[in-house]
Amino acid sequence: MRLLSTLAVSALMASGAALADDGLENYRDRFEALPYLPPIPADNSLTEEKVELGKMMFFEPRISSSGVISCATCHNPALGWSDRIPRATGHDGQVGERNTPTVLNSGFLDAQFWDGREPDLEGQALGPIEASVEMAMDLDMALERLTSFDLYQRKFAEAFPEDEEPLNADNLAYSLASFQRTLNTPNSPFDRYLRGDMNALTQQEKNGMVAFVDNGCIACHRGPALTDSQFHAIQVPGSTDLGRYLVTDEESDKYRFRTPTLRNVAVTYPYMNNGATETLEEAVAIMGQEMLGRDFEEQSIADITAFLHTLTGEMPHFEVPALP
Amino acid sequence: MRLLSTLAVSALMASGAALADDGLENYRDRFEALPYLPPIPADNSLTEEKVELGKMMFFEPRISSSGVISCATCHNPALGWSDRIPRATGHDGQVGERNTPTVLNSGFLDAQFWDGREPDLEGQALGPIEASVEMAMDLDMALERLTSFDLYQRKFAEAFPEDEEPLNADNLAYSLASFQRTLNTPNSPFDRYLRGDMNALTQQEKNGMVAFVDNGCIACHRGPALTDSQFHAIQVPGSTDLGRYLVTDEESDKYRFRTPTLRNVAVTYPYMNNGATETLEEAVAIMGQEMLGRDFEEQSIADITAFLHTLTGEMPHFEVPALP
Repeated sequence: MRLLSTLAVSALMASGAALADDGLENYRDRFEALPYLPPIPADNSLTEEKVELGKMMFFEPRISSSGVISCATCHNPALGWSDRIPRATGHDGQVGERNTPTVLNSGFLDAQFWDGREPDLEGQALGPIEASVEMAMDLDMALERLTSFDLYQRKFAEAFPEDEEPLNADNLAYSLASFQRTLNTPNSPFDRYLRGDMNALTQQEKNGMVAFVDNGCIACHRGPALTDSQFHAIQVPGSTDLGRYLVTDEESDKYRFRTPTLRNVAVTYPYMNNGATETLEEAVAIMGQEMLGRDFEEQSIADITAFLHTLTGEMPHFEVPALP
Repeated sequence: MRLLSTLAVSALMASGAALADDGLENYRDRFEALPYLPPIPADNSLTEEKVELGKMMFFEPRISSSGVISCATCHNPALGWSDRIPRATGHDGQVGERNTPTVLNSGFLDAQFWDGREPDLEGQALGPIEASVEMAMDLDMALERLTSFDLYQRKFAEAFPEDEEPLNADNLAYSLASFQRTLNTPNSPFDRYLRGDMNALTQQEKNGMVAFVDNGCIACHRGPALTDSQFHAIQVPGSTDLGRYLVTDEESDKYRFRTPTLRNVAVTYPYMNNGATETLEEAVAIMGQEMLGRDFEEQSIADITAFLHTLTGEMPHFEVPALP
């Protein structure tokens, strides 16, 4: 019993000693620890079969027209499930307009893509397959290629047992979305701090948290993924991208972009919609100027940057699937 | 004690019962089970530090000029450490002349590349980085990019502690070669059979082994990796590739290619130097005609194909590295 309860307590990272308050409860209360799983939509229950299939689809390059580009090419697990280059590079080496967002914790977002043109992962999943600068693949042809593998016919049937013809576009999207909902990064130092481990953050990191709240960063970067999933106007150096306007055609949406998550921001550089900003320090300074209308002092930039580093969580464990 | 010795025996896959001979000892004696590791060269000892670094380099796309192509793009762990397309597709979607060989068990080969232009993995490793149709990267620029990461400076220093400037081209090759030497696939059904488990192969698979020997396939496909690492003339449909001649300039080397390994051949399709052959059955028939001057009967093709499937071993377990 004693061992068990000790384990339970340490699992919560909330030992009695560490609970001694550091006087920042009012700040901590503004944040939420990252849950292990995001909300699961009612019409796409999270099953092992879908996740396993979705993982195969995520790593499957033969649903690209070249046969060598998969979701994992730009959402590279070795690179924070992103690509660490300014703008996405896809079919035939074409360079897109925007920086690749990480898929980590993307299930927590209420708007997908920089311009929020899809509300959820199911809507997002097929876009990059068809985009001419990404995988450049006709969707019917992708499904035909998948159908040519007996294993995939079986896996789709297992994942969607109620469908008569389970290997279809909707189910490809459902399975990809299911896999992506498992790619979360809980237990970052900041999460452990929020759960009561007062020693999980250094004093500078706590100062950064305070600066982050007091300066108003938290107005948009809030909730478990530190984004409001809303659209805010910003024109960063070198960008002429019209953003949300391209989706809504509303004048007021010009140059608006969805607030990016700050989870794992230290390992998902470069920054901004055009990926032109290489370091966190620069990014923090630009956000201060553009979004908050203030020039941060060097100390604030250093503190906030230190805080942002505490948002790097545990990377998902997975085995690269063996494809047919 | 009893448990221990039981474990030891089962680890060898050589229980008393299964040792009862099936009368094919003379055939088995022509083969060699795959060792867990290939020979390690005297000037590149296999250390954990080199293997870990080599793994990072293998998955590192920023040593390509586009920033998105790594060794793992064409030598894709999800696809038998190859690419399952006819001919390698690299920088800007360019398609090369030859089919990508798997890196699995490549440490057992005495000649690298289809034309054997390098004798070992150390010699092979940097070729694809610089090749204009593959990663298309200037080697000095690749080293410069690596040097820009503190983590890589440290990892190279740890892997090559005796070098004053450890982050150099030679050590990049040494580390990649070291990682590749760990990518072996022991314990295939055929290996278990060779080690004494008479039930590891079906009767048809054994018939295939017999046909493989009796028809002379084993003349070139021999040794632990089922290749002699020698060069043999073959012109498969659709190929005008001059092969080994391009390396030696010797008339007699025209159309010669290194015998490919047959280890994991069932999961490393398509086949031949130009990847134009999709199925094992076709490949077996072509080899009969081109190399042995005989038309195999359908039964022989089916048997040999069944045998070739027993050469698929245990895929290497690894975690995708977290790159800086």
